Parts: sequence; C-alpha cells; structure tokens
Amino acid sequence: MLEELKKEVCAANLELVRRGVVIYTWGNVSGIDREKGLVVIKPSGVDYAGMTPEDMVVLDLATGSTVEGKWRPSSDTPTHLELYRKYESIGGITHTHSVNAVSFAQAGMDIPALGTTHADYFWGAVPCTRALSQEEVAGGYEANTGKVIIETIEARKKDPLAVPGIIVKNHGPFTWGKNAGESVYHAVVLETVAEMALKSLMLNRNSTLDQYVLDKHYERKHGPNAYYGQR
Amino acid sequence: MLEELKKEVCAANLELVRRGVVIYTWGNVSGIDREKGLVVIKPSGVDYAGMTPEDMVVLDLATGSTVEGKWRPSSDTPTHLELYRKYESIGGITHTHSVNAVSFAQAGMDIPALGTTHADYFWGAVPCTRALSQEEVAGGYEANTGKVIIETIEARKKDPLAVPGIIVKNHGPFTWGKNAGESVYHAVVLETVAEMALKSLMLNRNSTLDQYVLDKHYERKHGPNAYYGQR
Amino acid sequence: MLEELKKEVCAANLELVRRGVVIYTWGNVSGIDREKGLVVIKPSGVDYAGMTPEDMVVLDLATGSTVEGKWRPSSDTPTHLELYRKYESIGGITHTHSVNAVSFAQAGMDIPALGTTHADYFWGAVPCTRALSQEEVAGGYEANTGKVIIETIEARKKDPLAVPGIIVKNHGPFTWGKNAGESVYHAVVLETVAEMALKSLMLNRNSTLDQYVLDKHYERKHGPNAYYGQR
Amino acid sequence: MLEELKKEVCAANLELVRRGVVIYTWGNVSGIDREKGLVVIKPSGVDYAGMTPEDMVVLDLATGSTVEGKWRPSSDTPTHLELYRKYESIGGITHTHSVNAVSFAQAGMDIPALGTTHADYFWGAVPCTRALSQEEVAGGYEANTGKVIIETIEARKKDPLAVPGIIVKNHGPFTWGKNAGESVYHAVVLETVAEMALKSLMLNRNSTLDQYVLDKHYERKHGPNAYYGQR
Repeated sequence: MLEELKKEVCAANLELVRRGVVIYTWGNVSGIDREKGLVVIKPSGVDYAGMTPEDMVVLDLATGSTVEGKWRPSSDTPTHLELYRKYESIGGITHTHSVNAVSFAQAGMDIPALGTTHADYFWGAVPCTRALSQEEVAGGYEANTGKVIIETIEARKKDPLAVPGIIVKNHGPFTWGKNAGESVYHAVVLETVAEMALKSLMLNRNSTLDQYVLDKHYERKHGPNAYYGQR
Repeated sequence: MLEELKKEVCAANLELVRRGVVIYTWGNVSGIDREKGLVVIKPSGVDYAGMTPEDMVVLDLATGSTVEGKWRPSSDTPTHLELYRKYESIGGITHTHSVNAVSFAQAGMDIPALGTTHADYFWGAVPCTRALSQEEVAGGYEANTGKVIIETIEARKKDPLAVPGIIVKNHGPFTWGKNAGESVYHAVVLETVAEMALKSLMLNRNSTLDQYVLDKHYERKHGPNAYYGQR
Repeated sequence: MLEELKKEVCAANLELVRRGVVIYTWGNVSGIDREKGLVVIKPSGVDYAGMTPEDMVVLDLATGSTVEGKWRPSSDTPTHLELYRKYESIGGITHTHSVNAVSFAQAGMDIPALGTTHADYFWGAVPCTRALSQEEVAGGYEANTGKVIIETIEARKKDPLAVPGIIVKNHGPFTWGKNAGESVYHAVVLETVAEMALKSLMLNRNSTLDQYVLDKHYERKHGPNAYYGQR
Repeated sequence: MLEELKKEVCAANLELVRRGVVIYTWGNVSGIDREKGLVVIKPSGVDYAGMTPEDMVVLDLATGSTVEGKWRPSSDTPTHLELYRKYESIGGITHTHSVNAVSFAQAGMDIPALGTTHADYFWGAVPCTRALSQEEVAGGYEANTGKVIIETIEARKKDPLAVPGIIVKNHGPFTWGKNAGESVYHAVVLETVAEMALKSLMLNRNSTLDQYVLDKHYERKHGPNAYYGQR
C-alpha cells in the first residue's frame, strides 16, 4: 500500500545522506497521506545503505499503530505524529542531527534571521524550544517533544509553514514542508543558515537584519505576488 | 542566437556547483555581448542538474526585456543590468550565497585585506555595502541593490576591476570579471579569502596587512610590469 | 590464524579513512580474541592504501610479544594492551587524531555532554586525562598512557562501556566497543559530538544539559528497556 | 633531462590538489638534484588539470636561470632557491595558501605546538616570520622572502629539518623535506595541525604542551632511537 509515498519517503531519507546532514542511522523523514490518514516513516536504527521503499513503516495517524512494515518505526515517531495531528498543512517532516543546527540547540539559542538566505525560507528566527521538564522526559518523551514544538510554534502566532523548522533545546532540528522532499530541503537550508549565523555571530555578536528586508525576501518567494522562480 | 555566450554562461553557472559555492538553485551567473548590447543570464529558480545552454535567458541591456528564452530570468537580473550599464569593463557577473562571504555580509563587515591571497585578486578590502533603506527595498529592490553596489564602488574611486567583488549587507557577494568564467573564479576566491579572514580575526582581532605588500602582490599579477603567470 | 578477526580489524582500519577521521598512517584499530588471549592490531606507520588482513599483527595479550605478522605493531600497542587487560568487556579499540577531538585534548578540556547526540552514545562528558608526568613519559610512555586512561575511567566509577571513549591530554581520542567495528563507530561519533560541543561553546560558554535528558537518551538506547532500533 | 625528478615533482604538485590544500593555480612544489645542481619546479600560473612532467621547469641552482622547459617558472622560484642554497639537507620545497595555515600567517602568529600530532613532525612551534620591510618588498621581493625565512630558521638554532616548515607573515606556509613528496606531506600535516591549533585556542587561549612530551614524540619518530614505523 502507498507505494508512491513509500518511494518518496525513502528517497527523501537517502537525500539526507547525500546532502551530508546525517551519518549512520541518524535522522528520519516521514510523509503523510492525508486522505487515508496514514503516515510513512523510516524504520528505527536501520542503515541508509541499501534502504528501499519496502523498509518504510506505515502508521495510522490517529492511533500511531503500525499498519504495514517489517520494522519498528523511528523512535521519534510520536514527535512526527503530534505535528501531523496539529497542523493539517504539513505533508512531510524531517529530523536530523546536523552539526551547526545542533550547536544552536545545545547553546539553547534561536537561529537568528540575519540575512536573505535565511529570509528566503524562514520568515523570522528559527526558534529554540524551552527545555522539557523532568516529568515531560520521564513519560511520553517523544510525544512531549512534539508538544513543546507546538507550544513554540503557537507562541509565534504564524502559519507553521512560514517558519518551517524549529530546534529542540539540547537536541536538534525538526523541519517540515508540503511533502517529505520539501522537509529535507528545509533541513539542508536550515543547516546552511545555521552555519552562516554562527560565523556571523563570531564576527559580530550584534548582527541584525532589518524587518523590512526579512519581509521582502520572504514575500518575493512565498507571498501572493511572489516573483522568484518560474510561474 | 549568441550560442557561444550561452554555452559560456551555462558552463560558468555549473562551475558554481562544482566549486561548492552554491546549493540547490542558489546563485546566478551572467555574461554580456557588448557589441550587440545583449545579456545572457541563468533562469530563475531552475535546478543546476541538467541545465543546458538552451535554458539561458537573453535580455536586452537597455530595456531589460527578454529577447530569447523559455524561462523567466534570475530574480537578481536588475542588479546585474545596473552593473553592466554603469561599468563597460565588466563582462561577466556572479552572485552566490557562499557561507563565509555571507557571514561577513550578515555581520555588516568588509572582508579586510589581510594577506597575499587576498591581495593577488582584490586591491584592498572587499567592501560591505550600506543597508538598503525601507524605500529602496519596497520598490525596485533588485535594481536598488545594483545602485547601492555602484555607490559603494564609486566611494572607493578605483577601477571596478581592481576589486572585482563586493558584499551586499545582510545578503551576500557579487563578483565580476572580464567574462562570466572570470566572475565565477572571483566568487570562489572571495569565498576562500573570506574564510581566511574570518579565521584570522578569530586568532587576532587586530590583524592587518601593510599597504606596500598589498600593492606589491596586486601589481605583480595585474600591474603594467606583472610577472606572475605566462606571457 | 585468526583470519576472521584480521579481516574485521583490517576493515575497521580502512573505515577510519573512509569516514575522514585519519589521514596518512595516522590512527590505529585493534580487536581481541578473548578466548585465545590474542590481540590483532594495525602495523606501525604503514599506509592504508592497499592494506590487507595479512598486514595485521597478532600479539599475545599477556606478554605483548608478536605471535604472527611481518610488520612491527602500532607504536600505540602498549596502550591498547593496558586497556584490554584491565577491562574484559572491551573487544575493540580505536585511536585517531581527528581534528575536533584533538582540539579538546590540546585545550585540556573534557568534551561536555551538551545534547542528545552525545547522550545517545556517551553517558556523561568524555573526560580528558591529566597530563602524564615527565617520568611517565620518559619510560614506558605508551603503557603509561594506558594507565592514565584507566585512572581516569576508574575515577568515574562507571562501566567503561557507558562512556566508550576518552581524550588523552595534548594527544587525542581513544575509543572502544564490543568489537573493532564498534570502536571505530564510537571514534566517528566522538569526532562529531566534539565539533558540536566546540561550536556550542563558541555560541554560549555556559551551555549545559539537564542530567535527566542525558539519562533518558542513554537509556532509551542502552538501558534495560531500550527502545531505539530493532529488537 | 632529469626525467625522474620531473615526474616526482609533477606528481607532488598534483598531490597538493588531491589533498585539498590548493585550488586553481595556487601553490608550487620543487625538488633538487644536488649532484647536478639543478632545481625542478612547477611553471607559473599554469593549471594543475592536465599538468605533465614535461611542463616542469629546470633551473640552475647557482644562477637561477632556466636550463630547460617551455614555461616561466613559479614566481616564487627565488624563495625556493634561497632555501636550497642555504640548507644542503633540503631536497624538496612546497608552498601553499592552505586556509588554516594562512590564517595564522595573517594573524601574525606562530602555530604553537599544542599536541602530539604537531610534535610528531615539528619539534616546536612553526614560527611566523617578521613582516618584510618596504625596501625588502620593493626590490627582490621573492628572494627577500627566502632571506626572511632563513633569518627565522637561524634564530631557532636548530636543524631546518627539525621543524620542516614556516609561515611567512601575511602570506602563507612554506614546508620542506628530504624530497618533493615529503615537502608536500609536511604541507598537508601543517594545514591539519594549524586547524587543530586554531580550534584549541578557541576553546582555551592558554593551551600549552609540556616540553618533555614534545621531545618524546619528536624523538620516537625522528631521534636516534626512533621506534615509530618499520625498520
């Protein structure tokens, strides 16, 4: 079942390796079929080498139980499910431990919007969540990670696709998009703008970006009158 | 039309990927035929994979309107046109979001001339422009980017080819040269000297270069008595 | 003799090159056959290019003398032997001069546990040993390196596999695991978390990780109720 | 003439590209035939792609004039000649603009000996020369660069092969060895230890190495009782 989506999610997972944002079994990508209410996700702790669409796990969005697949799903599955349940517009989710984004997560800092590379994709800082409490970690850790992400998105009062990524404190980035492939695309861009931000801050701790430049770049790509790319 | 120039500009764009200074659809290179008054530039938001000379867009220098091509030209086209119109000596222009050069742009700092690697290509600091005003961003943003670059070049009172690059504040580098290929060459060198400058400043915030070393290196490569390379 | 182990140790050594954690003849991996009391290790100063299982050296664990092999064993052999003799649970050992881990060693700093990437493998900081004394360096330097590693592990009062690595002050990382391959895996992870820690500290010198997150991540992968990966 | 040496020097130059320490036409390697008093060096400003032994230039050590070759020799030739004339033990010389070594040169700082990776090759800090005076730059710049390198080596009062490299202030590294290949080897090691030193200093500005560890590592590889590698 869902052969196309499994292919797409598998390809998106392999793209993570090719783009250099994961090593070993780190990271995971999922995609959703909203009509059927089914989520396709990478298996847990399985190597990327030789991974095929048949290795993907199909889950029921409502219950989280496995509908098809020979492997256990990614241990981060409950985080993905929380996000899919809350935001209908999200069609794919990626989690990585890419070095520069993780460095902001470990420093407990937002990735500030300092330039147009960032503004082309993220309409404002990529926020860092608060730390999970001891209780949130003890029970339902991965689902609570999703809840804390949602809490952070909600505090921003913006469409989740306007800033399609977040960094979980002491952990790492989660990104999303209209589909699995786009969520990977955002993961790679996030890692790149994190490196740029880190180096900018090394040069000048007071680096800033005018709000009107942020708005302009985001809108020329994503606004109603977007003129970047082809029609 | 302009088959040779389209080949050259296409090859120059692909070189950006090979040299690791762009990912995805980022960056763009153009070249100009001064006799015909026509500019060839990369299409907007089109992937480098599989890009051929036929994908290039041909524009009229004077009007900026498309003369040939199936795609919309790069959204940064008006910036390129401003530079071609102002400086007759420029034959090719490259724009990238390479990480280290962007970091200086985001920090709002010139890339200082700290060594001979820099001096071999750039006769002084690679300046960072001022920020564009809200008005300059609101209307004709890309053309105004070109105007602010020109304002910065003019303030230097030097041949634009003496320092064939600039960084636009909060945005990134533009480089130029006698042709499209040379502008890419300068983009790669700029990224490299930006990394060197960043690391030098990490080691010693007061790093400097004597003016006479700057002059010597620039002149041994580009002066009337240049003796670097072959005759 | 020990053909399988020689293959495994040779492959583990070559993996070091592929993963980018060694250049030239740097680094070495060994594995042990506990039943026979024999250690297989890379020869000293021999290039990785063209290295085959036949190049591996077989040593007697008790005496350290060569039992088989045409080459002299790695000069770090006495360090490996000390660790094998002390800790029965160790089946493989890797030593590298990977850049980021060495940087912590040269700075004389532990690699602090700042995030879940670290916590997934190392249950706490990866400690930096004390400096060896002049006497310890003068006689039996490599064996004394092993003794100082053991001294540091013992001070931690934990299973050596709970934090399967250490950095020797002014020198570099040693990692271990259930077998040669796992020790290489830990060497690559250590290098990655060292880069993350370095960058996190550049952003925020006061970066920290709550103990309960450290425990949670380590336990979900290695504890009695581990649920990461496949059963 | 000197077909073997030309092959060796050409291969050494190409190795610079493969090891990632040069781009474009940057860098140059030479080798010497002491018996014949002839130096073989890379041509100036010629691309590495397609370079063959026939492109190498043969020079007379005493006069510096070209004895064979269709190209002009590297513009840094007079620097090489100064070193060959002064130190009989030097058989090959490499010059690069590798990023981390250049960063120390631009910061005007020695590369301090902070660990055993450094000590295995360089018996003490890799010194940064003083700046050349305006007069030294104005006339005979490249020969004067050689003279300032020699001045720095002499101040150290050690065999030049004990620390087979130097960084020229605001310029970059020169390394040497028993032959061309070894000088490249030292250039790559120098770049690596420069990166390690830079990162160590970012972590701890007061990083140091005990003299007895420096001595031990250098001597176990290069001393009369060396025991690293094969006999």
